[in-house]
Amino acid sequence: MRVLICGGDGYLGWPTAMDFAATGHEVMVIDNYLRRTIARSTRSEALLEAPNLDDRAELFQSIAGHRIEVRIGDCADPTFLNAVFSSFLPDTVIHYAEQPSAPYSMRGFHEARLTFDNNLRVTFALIWAILQFKPDCHMVKLGTMGEYGTPNIDIEEGWIDIEHKGRKEKFLFPRQAGSLYHTTKVLDTDLLWFYVRTYGLRVTDLMQGPVYGLSTDQADLDDRLLPNFHYDDIFGTVVNRFLVQAVAGIPLTVYGKGGQTRGYLNLRDTLQCVYLAATKPAKERELRIFNQFTEQFTVNQLAERVSRAGNSLGLDVAVQSIANPRKELEDHYYNAQHSGLVELGLKPHPMTDEVLIGMLERVIANKSRIDTKKIMQRVRWA
Amino acid sequence: MRVLICGGDGYLGWPTAMDFAATGHEVMVIDNYLRRTIARSTRSEALLEAPNLDDRAELFQSIAGHRIEVRIGDCADPTFLNAVFSSFLPDTVIHYAEQPSAPYSMRGFHEARLTFDNNLRVTFALIWAILQFKPDCHMVKLGTMGEYGTPNIDIEEGWIDIEHKGRKEKFLFPRQAGSLYHTTKVLDTDLLWFYVRTYGLRVTDLMQGPVYGLSTDQADLDDRLLPNFHYDDIFGTVVNRFLVQAVAGIPLTVYGKGGQTRGYLNLRDTLQCVYLAATKPAKERELRIFNQFTEQFTVNQLAERVSRAGNSLGLDVAVQSIANPRKELEDHYYNAQHSGLVELGLKPHPMTDEVLIGMLERVIANKSRIDTKKIMQRVRWA
Repeated sequence: MRVLICGGDGYLGWPTAMDFAATGHEVMVIDNYLRRTIARSTRSEALLEAPNLDDRAELFQSIAGHRIEVRIGDCADPTFLNAVFSSFLPDTVIHYAEQPSAPYSMRGFHEARLTFDNNLRVTFALIWAILQFKPDCHMVKLGTMGEYGTPNIDIEEGWIDIEHKGRKEKFLFPRQAGSLYHTTKVLDTDLLWFYVRTYGLRVTDLMQGPVYGLSTDQADLDDRLLPNFHYDDIFGTVVNRFLVQAVAGIPLTVYGKGGQTRGYLNLRDTLQCVYLAATKPAKERELRIFNQFTEQFTVNQLAERVSRAGNSLGLDVAVQSIANPRKELEDHYYNAQHSGLVELGLKPHPMTDEVLIGMLERVIANKSRIDTKKIMQRVRWA
Repeated sequence: MRVLICGGDGYLGWPTAMDFAATGHEVMVIDNYLRRTIARSTRSEALLEAPNLDDRAELFQSIAGHRIEVRIGDCADPTFLNAVFSSFLPDTVIHYAEQPSAPYSMRGFHEARLTFDNNLRVTFALIWAILQFKPDCHMVKLGTMGEYGTPNIDIEEGWIDIEHKGRKEKFLFPRQAGSLYHTTKVLDTDLLWFYVRTYGLRVTDLMQGPVYGLSTDQADLDDRLLPNFHYDDIFGTVVNRFLVQAVAGIPLTVYGKGGQTRGYLNLRDTLQCVYLAATKPAKERELRIFNQFTEQFTVNQLAERVSRAGNSLGLDVAVQSIANPRKELEDHYYNAQHSGLVELGLKPHPMTDEVLIGMLERVIANKSRIDTKKIMQRVRWA
């Protein structure tokens, strides 16, 4: 299978590329290093700055013997993207190419505009590259569980059957996200659904929860193959940030009451999910939606688990509640379905103490690189 | 009240501007003549090409004594829009500034991209102009009934209470539109709802049905003050197109079975609705949604009404079904609520024979200008 990975430099993009290459697929990654540009301009560089994509692809080939083609360019630019599509003719395109930080999208006009323009334009350009050059190409799109927000009813997998005044209809599950970043993904879903039902596109939209982890079969071959690991307030997801706080000896910062519940998953499970979605594709004219997470936790439960793992390594981990910089419910109903990917074959890696300890040990080995200024939240929702 | 009208050159924008100016408000219109540019490039010029905005504003002031300020520029450009906002400081902004043609948005990549970029970027720029320069400004946004599509349940006014597995939540009524143009308005609604609930914006989103008519109190003062009247397949709405076909002596073209049901309204009622929304504004942090139409008809019923009116004037009106160029249901359930604007004070002008005859007489007076090549559908949905 020919697999094009848009956003191949990212936390998920690069491990995904190695995973498909290692299982015998022809892989091309594209990226314009937007995340690195933003990280530098906001002093949010990763704990371990991965080599550039060309160097990493060379390194991976020399170590593992698998080839990954690299193209540097902007997926929002149809001239660039169409040239890639018409020459590579992918069977599957995996769409990670979005500005991925919620706090960044909430900093102000400039950051909101960059997020909005980039994310919507990339999705639009990808849709049209498929329609024009490879209409049967299957798009695997990374959405987010954050699209749903925290409604007072059970969150179904993408769709809901509504009975209203004695009549019935199936609709997209209503979405209402908590940041502009998450809202761009709501708009993506609406747009994809239009092109699926009207132009016959085939799409799998993965509503993913926050991901944690560093280790994958390929990344474990060499430290320089590890994914970008962010612990800052801009790009660091909550578990990764807590682990670095535990190692740095500063309290784990819980926003507000800490009752915010979300679905989480291990990086290894993201790889499984994306692989399953790609190798068991959606049908023509199908928008297939999965809720991609394995376990639900409150922020307080995460803090407790990281504390326990840290303390078992002799770290002295404290937890501190700080004023919530976000606008969100801190105590709410949350029950999200997530059986679709398990039915497709997902074998979850739960968040055990062992997993957390393994991550802590990697962070400890790089303790001298931690810059504590990067950790505390610097962006407040309007 | 200081009223800024974005898209002031349009079929609705110009009569709205005259209406507010005539009732004593300070009015500024902005437009970049995008519709005229598209009309020329697609050979879809209006039956009566209105003078440019500067000339019309001068004419209106000389005839009626009311001033309308004119700024020519692109609302999607924050530099232009912010300069307008920071100097004019509107109390109300009426947002018509979108590429308004569904068939144009379905012609191909170029037209889709223009529609998508323009419509989303204008809405985004307007949101941020308000947030930065006049946070209490009330936005009256022209949405469309087409956002809802044709679901198998009753269409409520913007919102729906869902009971699911014993729990309840109120959501935006699910939207699924039939063209890219209509889909950009779905995305607008999602985006506005995010900025309303997170940043406290106040917005009235008007889900408008197709509008017909030429006559308004101000437009009737002079033929040069009439709104742009399109009868082509790109910008002409169905009733206006049928009237021109009746006068030109060519059959009224019904797409497919003609059972497509929509809610329609007279141009005079659009003016009333927008005026009511502006003078009785939404509250801070409120997204108020109205379904803006007065009567539901099938396309067959419209053809029958135009035939009857035409025949009473001695025209020999035929009706012909042609292959439907769109992807849409031709026979479906449709029952949309629309009580909100009536409760606010709307006094509907129904589609009487007299109204249709009045329009036919205006078209007959300009019969020599009709170019029948412009009428037949030239765009087919993919």
